[in-house]
Amino acid sequence: MPAPQNAEAREVYEKERAHVLAPWTAWGKHDPMVVTKSEGVYLWDGDDNKLLDFTSQLVNTNIGHQHPVVVKAIQDQAAEMCTINPAHANAARAEAARLISSIAPEGMNRVFFTMAGTEAVEHAIRMARRHTGRVKTLSAFRSYHGATTTSMNLTGDTRRWANDYGNTGAVHFHAPFLYRSQFYAETEEQECERALQHLDDLIALEGPDHFAALIIESIPGTVGIMVPPADYLRGVREICDKYGIVMICDEVMSGFGRAGTWLALDNFRNGPDDWTPDLITFAKGSNSGYIPLGGVIIHDRIAESFKDTPYTGGLTYAGHPLACGSAVATINLMRDEGIVEHAKKLGEEVIGPRLREIAEKHPSVGEVRGLGCFWALELVKNQETREPLAPYGGSSEAMAKAMGAAKAEGVLLFMNYNRFHVVPPLVITEEQVREGLDVLDRALDVADGYVD
Amino acid sequence: MPAPQNAEAREVYEKERAHVLAPWTAWGKHDPMVVTKSEGVYLWDGDDNKLLDFTSQLVNTNIGHQHPVVVKAIQDQAAEMCTINPAHANAARAEAARLISSIAPEGMNRVFFTMAGTEAVEHAIRMARRHTGRVKTLSAFRSYHGATTTSMNLTGDTRRWANDYGNTGAVHFHAPFLYRSQFYAETEEQECERALQHLDDLIALEGPDHFAALIIESIPGTVGIMVPPADYLRGVREICDKYGIVMICDEVMSGFGRAGTWLALDNFRNGPDDWTPDLITFAKGSNSGYIPLGGVIIHDRIAESFKDTPYTGGLTYAGHPLACGSAVATINLMRDEGIVEHAKKLGEEVIGPRLREIAEKHPSVGEVRGLGCFWALELVKNQETREPLAPYGGSSEAMAKAMGAAKAEGVLLFMNYNRFHVVPPLVITEEQVREGLDVLDRALDVADGYVD
Ligand SMILES: Cc1ncc(COP(=O)(O)O)c(C=O)c1O
Ligand SMILES: Cc1ncc(COP(=O)(O)O)c(C=O)c1O
Repeated sequence: MPAPQNAEAREVYEKERAHVLAPWTAWGKHDPMVVTKSEGVYLWDGDDNKLLDFTSQLVNTNIGHQHPVVVKAIQDQAAEMCTINPAHANAARAEAARLISSIAPEGMNRVFFTMAGTEAVEHAIRMARRHTGRVKTLSAFRSYHGATTTSMNLTGDTRRWANDYGNTGAVHFHAPFLYRSQFYAETEEQECERALQHLDDLIALEGPDHFAALIIESIPGTVGIMVPPADYLRGVREICDKYGIVMICDEVMSGFGRAGTWLALDNFRNGPDDWTPDLITFAKGSNSGYIPLGGVIIHDRIAESFKDTPYTGGLTYAGHPLACGSAVATINLMRDEGIVEHAKKLGEEVIGPRLREIAEKHPSVGEVRGLGCFWALELVKNQETREPLAPYGGSSEAMAKAMGAAKAEGVLLFMNYNRFHVVPPLVITEEQVREGLDVLDRALDVADGYVD
Repeated sequence: MPAPQNAEAREVYEKERAHVLAPWTAWGKHDPMVVTKSEGVYLWDGDDNKLLDFTSQLVNTNIGHQHPVVVKAIQDQAAEMCTINPAHANAARAEAARLISSIAPEGMNRVFFTMAGTEAVEHAIRMARRHTGRVKTLSAFRSYHGATTTSMNLTGDTRRWANDYGNTGAVHFHAPFLYRSQFYAETEEQECERALQHLDDLIALEGPDHFAALIIESIPGTVGIMVPPADYLRGVREICDKYGIVMICDEVMSGFGRAGTWLALDNFRNGPDDWTPDLITFAKGSNSGYIPLGGVIIHDRIAESFKDTPYTGGLTYAGHPLACGSAVATINLMRDEGIVEHAKKLGEEVIGPRLREIAEKHPSVGEVRGLGCFWALELVKNQETREPLAPYGGSSEAMAKAMGAAKAEGVLLFMNYNRFHVVPPLVITEEQVREGLDVLDRALDVADGYVD
């Protein structure tokens, strides 16, 4: 990307290149887009190009950029109280905890606050280890759980590779993914049944009494938005019960309306009396990332272990008033404006149908999957062989060119290996989302040019 | 503590008890003080008692509570841009990185941003491991580095115990602490020399070619504010050089003016050409914790490893604009108002002299140590035997009663086992600090009652 021409943006560009080490990046090759303004579903780059944000950044700005209600709430809370020792009670934290437990299943009444996703995962695993007295963990190969040591080892995807010393008792399993089935399955039902059998077999061979926790993204996010078969998570719950394993649903990306429900796991429960996880990790959508916030929602059956015995973990900014205040405002706003229902409707009536139409038309599209405002397109060189349009863990000219074509028409796509994700802010209008999908449609013509 | 009588504060108290799991706490016994207001160096509890904050909360609010300049900057930045993908450049992050590297030693020009201390430590260790290709680490027994897996294993103090599976290659050494010398030393010089010899011997026995990193708090904080002998850190640097070990100074608590200098390590360097660490971790004081922020300042010699090869770590909120904007405002404010110089002067002219006077007078005070606004009183049952007034990792009636006596007179003390720390906001006036120290003086009469 050429550096911005605008002098002010150019200074930002140069300063970042000189002084910042960005995540997962080689600074010598760092060539960032400067963002000078963000509002609603739009961003402006250093050359004043307006871009429709189909990424929600890292799938966190569920209420869009700079929502005036939450910006105002942050300004008010900043005037009242920014920070306090987590040992002292404060109004913003107390109310955020009450609200967050109110969106979780019955019996999940307590919240441990962190600053984002990876710390939520670390503390959830620690709670499970303290609760069970066991150490080993289970997680999916196609998963991302964060970048501190335990979260990194739980992570299944390529980001783990260079950081894995094989020393934390992390065992990985295959979650269901019919399009690339590990189980030679031909139907969703078969994939579900065999994935559960595989998990049970793996536990038998790894030592049934040795697992503290199983963590799973209710709907895997960055790694591909593979919506699980209807009964899969219920089956996982049964296996966890059978072996006394703490079940953790990671809702860092999928929670807070992203999947058209408050939590993605709501899609897989038949009413309030159905199965529940033991712990839920959350972050991003809880306050759209306006201030760093995350945490663990704890079922009473696990909380019991920390009633008389202290939980052995903490952090300076646990339950930070300013972060909690922004979550209170965000959750109330989402309720008042029916944002979760809107996301569901968009998925069912606009994004889903239009993406399936797009898939029909383009030979480069292998599969479309998702719900709510949480969709992936799996791009392939060949619809028969399903060979990905970029290798696992890598990039390709085809993907980069298609991405560039969308951007040239003013749409910012989320790209991961051979996939584009359609993950706009949940507040996007039907018209805006249609505009963006039309651009995507045209960009896929570029990808089609790379099909065998 | 009795629950607050005020109805609003009481509701907060009850809600936190019902819905929050606080760090290092058993919720069944959780009895928090409700803080309803904070301003400058004062807090107000749920019964409208005004308290002088001698804790800076968790030693983070270096500029005091609700400083109007930084509150205003947060409000302005919130109106402009709260959050953005770390892959995109933005003005607040670029300027924060420039400013933060400007307070570090020459050659430390690049910043990796996190949200607070423990993530800074995790990423610093990962950088060292990627840079050296080695895994094992060295850290002090009397240390705290955070509560995610690697940071927890590096931590020396009691908080590690329940969370340590002995699986991350963490080796612990004794840093100098003359008052409780491990080396039978009688002078600072002897303690320094023997502590360095001990470190070198330990490395020889653990495998000189196997250590990726040594991490050390420039001045150990929570664990007791043991100001190291003048030449100790320079000696550690030499040992690290000898074995190719990356040296990390943890300035999460000691940095940003706390020790009367921008970084605590400035106290142990003779001018700009003296030794430098390879990496510095920071958090708390960088923006007084008004918004969660932390990071790693990287020496060019380490950054070189991530010029062409990507650094393998990241987080959603790396270089969060709102957090970075608050750091820019905080650092500029500290410069403009000479807050660091003020902290130094307070330490030299007011806190130090007065605490030594107090120590003279009270048989319960074994030692006073510190500098800037960073002081500890080590309380003992007996000045000869030096038996602590509370056991390592525990509490005692003597300590609790003395703490309560100070609080009854309106001063909030920082207590850790057998120590009180005097760690007020750096903006405290001479008069305010004298008032607080007078209260501390009287509270120690209570502690004296428990001396053998
Ligand atoms: C499912 C999931 N868990 C955990 C994380 C880690 O969150 P963070 O980057 O805030 O540490 C992510 C981040 O994308 C995620 O998608
Ligand atoms: C020296 C030091 N390092 C790291 C940490 C961990 O920081 P955080 O609680 O922000 O994760 C602390 C916290 O007190 C600290 O004092």
